[in-house]
Amino acid sequence: MKALRRVELVAIGDELLNGIRTNSHLVYFGEILTRKGLPLDQASEIPDRPEALAKALQQAFSRSELIFLTGGLGPTQDDNTVACVASALRLPTEHSQHVEESITAFFAERGKKPTPNNLKQCQIIQGAEALDNPNGTAPGQWLQLDQQVIVLLPGPPQELYPMFENEVLPRLEKLGWIHETESAVQIRTVGIGESKVADLLDPVLKMAADNIQVAYCAHLGYVDIRLSPIPGGWDSTKVRTLGEACRERLGLGFLGYGTPDLACVILKQLRGLNKSLAVAESCTGGLLASRFTDVPGASKVFKGGVVCYLNEIKEHLLNVPGCLLEQHGAVSAECAVAMATGVAELMESDYALSITGYAGPEAGDEPAGTIYLGYHSPVGVWSCKVNLPGNRTAVKERAVLTALDFIRRKLDKYKVYDLLESLKC
Amino acid sequence: MKALRRVELVAIGDELLNGIRTNSHLVYFGEILTRKGLPLDQASEIPDRPEALAKALQQAFSRSELIFLTGGLGPTQDDNTVACVASALRLPTEHSQHVEESITAFFAERGKKPTPNNLKQCQIIQGAEALDNPNGTAPGQWLQLDQQVIVLLPGPPQELYPMFENEVLPRLEKLGWIHETESAVQIRTVGIGESKVADLLDPVLKMAADNIQVAYCAHLGYVDIRLSPIPGGWDSTKVRTLGEACRERLGLGFLGYGTPDLACVILKQLRGLNKSLAVAESCTGGLLASRFTDVPGASKVFKGGVVCYLNEIKEHLLNVPGCLLEQHGAVSAECAVAMATGVAELMESDYALSITGYAGPEAGDEPAGTIYLGYHSPVGVWSCKVNLPGNRTAVKERAVLTALDFIRRKLDKYKVYDLLESLKC
Repeated sequence: MKALRRVELVAIGDELLNGIRTNSHLVYFGEILTRKGLPLDQASEIPDRPEALAKALQQAFSRSELIFLTGGLGPTQDDNTVACVASALRLPTEHSQHVEESITAFFAERGKKPTPNNLKQCQIIQGAEALDNPNGTAPGQWLQLDQQVIVLLPGPPQELYPMFENEVLPRLEKLGWIHETESAVQIRTVGIGESKVADLLDPVLKMAADNIQVAYCAHLGYVDIRLSPIPGGWDSTKVRTLGEACRERLGLGFLGYGTPDLACVILKQLRGLNKSLAVAESCTGGLLASRFTDVPGASKVFKGGVVCYLNEIKEHLLNVPGCLLEQHGAVSAECAVAMATGVAELMESDYALSITGYAGPEAGDEPAGTIYLGYHSPVGVWSCKVNLPGNRTAVKERAVLTALDFIRRKLDKYKVYDLLESLKC
Repeated sequence: MKALRRVELVAIGDELLNGIRTNSHLVYFGEILTRKGLPLDQASEIPDRPEALAKALQQAFSRSELIFLTGGLGPTQDDNTVACVASALRLPTEHSQHVEESITAFFAERGKKPTPNNLKQCQIIQGAEALDNPNGTAPGQWLQLDQQVIVLLPGPPQELYPMFENEVLPRLEKLGWIHETESAVQIRTVGIGESKVADLLDPVLKMAADNIQVAYCAHLGYVDIRLSPIPGGWDSTKVRTLGEACRERLGLGFLGYGTPDLACVILKQLRGLNKSLAVAESCTGGLLASRFTDVPGASKVFKGGVVCYLNEIKEHLLNVPGCLLEQHGAVSAECAVAMATGVAELMESDYALSITGYAGPEAGDEPAGTIYLGYHSPVGVWSCKVNLPGNRTAVKERAVLTALDFIRRKLDKYKVYDLLESLKC
């Protein structure tokens, strides 16, 4: 069910508009609020300047019932949110003794004293509740008016997120504005382009067009599809059945429901087989290993990796034969496979994955973006060549994703053999 | 000089509001437009639903002279931007034969044919110029009205960025709306908190308060400060002099002007000494190595790394003594130093950096977030212990940043000895 309230997020700070910082709060708020049945209807980013802020606040206050403001509560001279909100609402601010004590205690714990700047952070809008900030000095503010709720929150994520979860969500729950909702279904695909996904799903989704809203989102190798029932439309069972129909049409391109992480899916596959993994990386320089170690508990499967940026390391550490490097070069299918086998031997792992190539801007015999993957498994070795677009960072990202999807598909295809193999041990 | 035109970015797509995707375009537009003297006055994110889109477009069209719209030009049923803009402006759309031919050619090059979905992308708003999209099927649209310019751009970055640079910027230049500007000065600091930075700089910045606008931005270890002259205020020489005064007050906390990357600064330091580097990582699992290899040309200094997730790898590959691991454990200053020395020996590098610790959620004798750094150099070995807040990903990020800043400061402090050392070779 779509909430009847209009909800918006206003993020304040010049750094959001001049290219210094991404508004990462929006993803955070968006995910939680959607899950809790109170989706955002709009979001905006506004500069620090008081006159710009005043105008934007006026517009936001005139169109929405629930407004989250982030940023501009800090101690520096460009932090104007409290004064601007108070002025837009024609309310005075008051010095809070309680907040002053919290700030003093916060510094005392760290063996420091507040700077005079910090005292500015004790001003609370009349009628607002101060929200505790155990991770910083700026308190949040919860202002409940006749027709509206306005919530002021600090910008730094390590202060904002705990405050939102511990102070704001319980208050929204008390108002009856949020509840857990499971009716929307999200599907993640990997290794297929957006229009191909749409093409595959169209016949199934067409039949549901009056009942379901469909959103596609393509990002670096993944395409996500969200199926949300239109208000008064299908219940969650029907949406799940539609999800299953989509899953069938997508085949191996289906990664999972929700937003599963490829590395996590692979570690689960391997853990199911009771097998271990190691990686060897040249051009991706540790990014592949880092993806695996992002997964809590990775150490049960992932033994480690070698970043072999130089040929001498490939040769001496991974036993890639010097004559192979001479004949085929470090960017070759032969080298990729030798790296995978070498690291499996070195780390005594059952499986290994390797990446070698040109991330750019420099290139060699082949253009920047040329990547070879190597895969070592108990049932054989494979390699694969891809040409990836984009700058150095994008090529690294895409190479890692391609390598992950490569091993996922291979593990899926050969699971029977792998299971037989694991029974032998 | 502040532009007199009001400029805004409207990013369209449910995925931006429901937590699926970050609006990364905003950073991209913000950086380029600020640099070219046409800063954004506002940005917003709007859902795909036609009625929500219509209302938001109406508000944007009524308050800004230059409006960039991104997203919603795709082939799927939730792509409504063209129809909604046309309707908000009361203009019809027309089928473009030229666009149809481009789309057909785009698919032909890839040995494919357009799906019927793609023909929807041939609709152009009356009076608009279609903007070429060599990287995808959706053309952009440039609509120049009496008082306004409205630019429709595709959402995927690999389509948007080239189109913006090759089609949009030249048109803005022709209108005389953009020019290169160097008057703002940006400073990046590392290893000092935001209020401490403000405290250090306040005495200097106070004197410039009438002439300079100051913006602070703290993000994961860095604090950026942007000094922009107020319209009609200081010229670039004066702003640079102020920047130098700030630099002096910041001491070793000053990383550089602009947004320099820590890994890049370190590789430059080492390259100046003609020395090499290797890394050994446990809990950061390759992220430190990946940061170094993000820098083009890193291979001239960076030899490689080992991700030694398991104790057996630490022992067998890096020669960390088994009795050391038994006595002190893998998360200890002793192990960190042994890892650094071990990887320097293995990779035959002059310098080495190591990280071991608990990234969480799991922990051991010490709490999650406990990290030990090891540093091996020709003038000695050091270690350092830190306790970092946040979840697994945040701890990994912070540990890498702390390690990078640790080696940067050490390299800076001992540069005389290192130079002497390098003269000996």
